[in-house]
Amino acid sequence: MTAGKILNAVCSTRLQGLLETLATFGAGQNGGMNRQALSEEDFQARTWLISEAQKLGCTVWTDTCANLFIRREGREDLPPVMTGSHIDTQPGGGKLDGCYGVMAGLECLHALDAANVRTRRPIEVVVWTNEEGSRFSPGAMGSSAYVEPARLAAYRNNLDAAGVSVGAALDAHARRFAGLAWREKIAVHAFVELHIEQGPVLEQAKIPLGVVSGIQGVRWYQVRCKGAAAHAGTTPAHMRRDALLQAMQALAPIDALAERLAGEDKRLTFGRWNVYPNAINTIAGEATFSIDFRHASAAVLDAFDSGLRACLPVDAELSCLFAHAPTAFDQQIIDVLEQACEATGQGWQSIRSGAFHDAMYLAGHCPTAMLFVPSRDGISHNPLEFTEPAQLEAGVRALAWSLFALAEQP
Amino acid sequence: MTAGKILNAVCSTRLQGLLETLATFGAGQNGGMNRQALSEEDFQARTWLISEAQKLGCTVWTDTCANLFIRREGREDLPPVMTGSHIDTQPGGGKLDGCYGVMAGLECLHALDAANVRTRRPIEVVVWTNEEGSRFSPGAMGSSAYVEPARLAAYRNNLDAAGVSVGAALDAHARRFAGLAWREKIAVHAFVELHIEQGPVLEQAKIPLGVVSGIQGVRWYQVRCKGAAAHAGTTPAHMRRDALLQAMQALAPIDALAERLAGEDKRLTFGRWNVYPNAINTIAGEATFSIDFRHASAAVLDAFDSGLRACLPVDAELSCLFAHAPTAFDQQIIDVLEQACEATGQGWQSIRSGAFHDAMYLAGHCPTAMLFVPSRDGISHNPLEFTEPAQLEAGVRALAWSLFALAEQP
Repeated sequence: MTAGKILNAVCSTRLQGLLETLATFGAGQNGGMNRQALSEEDFQARTWLISEAQKLGCTVWTDTCANLFIRREGREDLPPVMTGSHIDTQPGGGKLDGCYGVMAGLECLHALDAANVRTRRPIEVVVWTNEEGSRFSPGAMGSSAYVEPARLAAYRNNLDAAGVSVGAALDAHARRFAGLAWREKIAVHAFVELHIEQGPVLEQAKIPLGVVSGIQGVRWYQVRCKGAAAHAGTTPAHMRRDALLQAMQALAPIDALAERLAGEDKRLTFGRWNVYPNAINTIAGEATFSIDFRHASAAVLDAFDSGLRACLPVDAELSCLFAHAPTAFDQQIIDVLEQACEATGQGWQSIRSGAFHDAMYLAGHCPTAMLFVPSRDGISHNPLEFTEPAQLEAGVRALAWSLFALAEQP
Repeated sequence: MTAGKILNAVCSTRLQGLLETLATFGAGQNGGMNRQALSEEDFQARTWLISEAQKLGCTVWTDTCANLFIRREGREDLPPVMTGSHIDTQPGGGKLDGCYGVMAGLECLHALDAANVRTRRPIEVVVWTNEEGSRFSPGAMGSSAYVEPARLAAYRNNLDAAGVSVGAALDAHARRFAGLAWREKIAVHAFVELHIEQGPVLEQAKIPLGVVSGIQGVRWYQVRCKGAAAHAGTTPAHMRRDALLQAMQALAPIDALAERLAGEDKRLTFGRWNVYPNAINTIAGEATFSIDFRHASAAVLDAFDSGLRACLPVDAELSCLFAHAPTAFDQQIIDVLEQACEATGQGWQSIRSGAFHDAMYLAGHCPTAMLFVPSRDGISHNPLEFTEPAQLEAGVRALAWSLFALAEQP
């Protein structure tokens, strides 16, 4: 009854206004965005957000990693329900990736006000610092440092392309927002992140809502094949050691391995190639390529890892660049999100996330899950990123229903 | 009898001394060379060469493309026999590519002096400007402009990486060598170029001399495969349009086509690759690669050209970047070179050139052929470029015999 009232208080016009205002900070080329983490554009966006929060009567905190917490108090002093995402963007990013999740949280607070509802638990809208990782490595910096504060010391030394350290940028943030209270990690009842899918699955299925079961694990490898650079005109075929051909010949067995392990769930990408000396008339002396393999099952990832070596030329160098285990979201939170989707009257399906999100780290701290809305043509990290306003509204309605339900839990 | 005397007057020590002195102009890293065309280093090398020529009592001319002609007069005023090559090098080049052919020519003049022989026809040692094409495009600039002077007007506008035009560099050469007489194209009785093989064929066959039957023709192509850049994590396999995989799948049919046409003479290289956006976690939206196909038969090159389109994805862009027809050297000159090799007492074989040389253009002006000596490990354009002194000497002995025989022709 109350949940339905809140859901119906969600206002698409207000949501679009919030998204449009946020997009004025760091407007980039071709209608895209360029709002790098802890940049002046980011600081201006935060200043606006804080003023919006204060208009809603919320308390605002920050912490040592410049995460921002906007708290609507509850009836009882219990661990809050959190929602949110990030507001930094890729250099040629869109207006929705991350931003949608934060503005959706604000819109839920508006809807709670409009419905005149005070929840049992506090609800907090969070902005996680530097999720994109495009200015400073690594991505999901704020959420990972929140959950594991010991990470921050190492992060502070990382430099952006101009030589500014994370530490210096965080110190600048602290000075700029010296008026904000600080608060480090607290107990959290639940975290729900609403995000655009950034893939084509919901759109192609014509289903407006996705309840995210978890995030795929990933392995990144680099393979370096070694040949002998030689003149394309003077070297007969049988005397060649062509590194590029060696690399090419490894792709089919790697693909077969992934296919055998993952079937139609196969997500295998050879995205980055460096050929040396990369000249038309010189046989490649070295060819280096990347492998990105993702799967929801840790056992499948391990089996891929075990089988990979045998797919490569004997003298190829294989190195693992990055590995992240799959994340399974909390079943009780998933149950609530499914009920919320039902309450919107819209179609929904279970989906796994192919991309990383702040929720991946929060899942290590509290019961966590995510909601997705479709991305037109699956496009993200691009000015063409777009989701229909009605779909964005549906996502916020499901989120509002969920936050209320979770915040009423004892 | 006389030919044998000249052949025996060739001195390996003097030849090595000439090569070592030339290598002092523009000595580069790791024992390699960096003497770019029309650079200060090139000018200094030319100054030394001119003084060496004058010591030998030769006349020296230059022309509008800064080619250098060192003439030892004959008994009669007939069109000369020419030999020579180039003295510019690749940025990390060796001491032999081109330089050997010029120093060999000088050594032959020394041998003629030592044998006290005056040939019927004049003999000229030529330095062709900018064969490498590494500072200014195109390569073989001097020899091609000599044979077809109309080419020069366009060449003069080409710029090096620092923005200096060919025209400006040629004008600087003209000022620097204002004391030299100028002479444009004349009738030439024969041109013989002695060069290192720059490939592994003679070395692997353990044969010290190669009589070059001709130069392979070449076709350079660029293939651009178009896919859709998308997130490696969020895009299911069946929804992908991976440009890199499209490119890879084209390689086997292209290779089969080349194999069918050329058999064991196949020289096919996919040397240059550009993948966009070339990121580990992004499916390639575009993959561009080069094809270098060479063959001695124009018909085979044409058949490759006709069959290539069918090997590619339907929407791939195919463009021909460069084409050069095969060059067949003059059989009468080849006969003389074969006799010269026999006269050295060394083994020899017929070989075709996989690389381009100034002789390719000269063949359009006068009867032309080439001699090769082995390259250790087939390596060239590299500080490791090396040929045994005894092999270098054998090449010059064959050249000296040939020049004498040709210069005695009526």
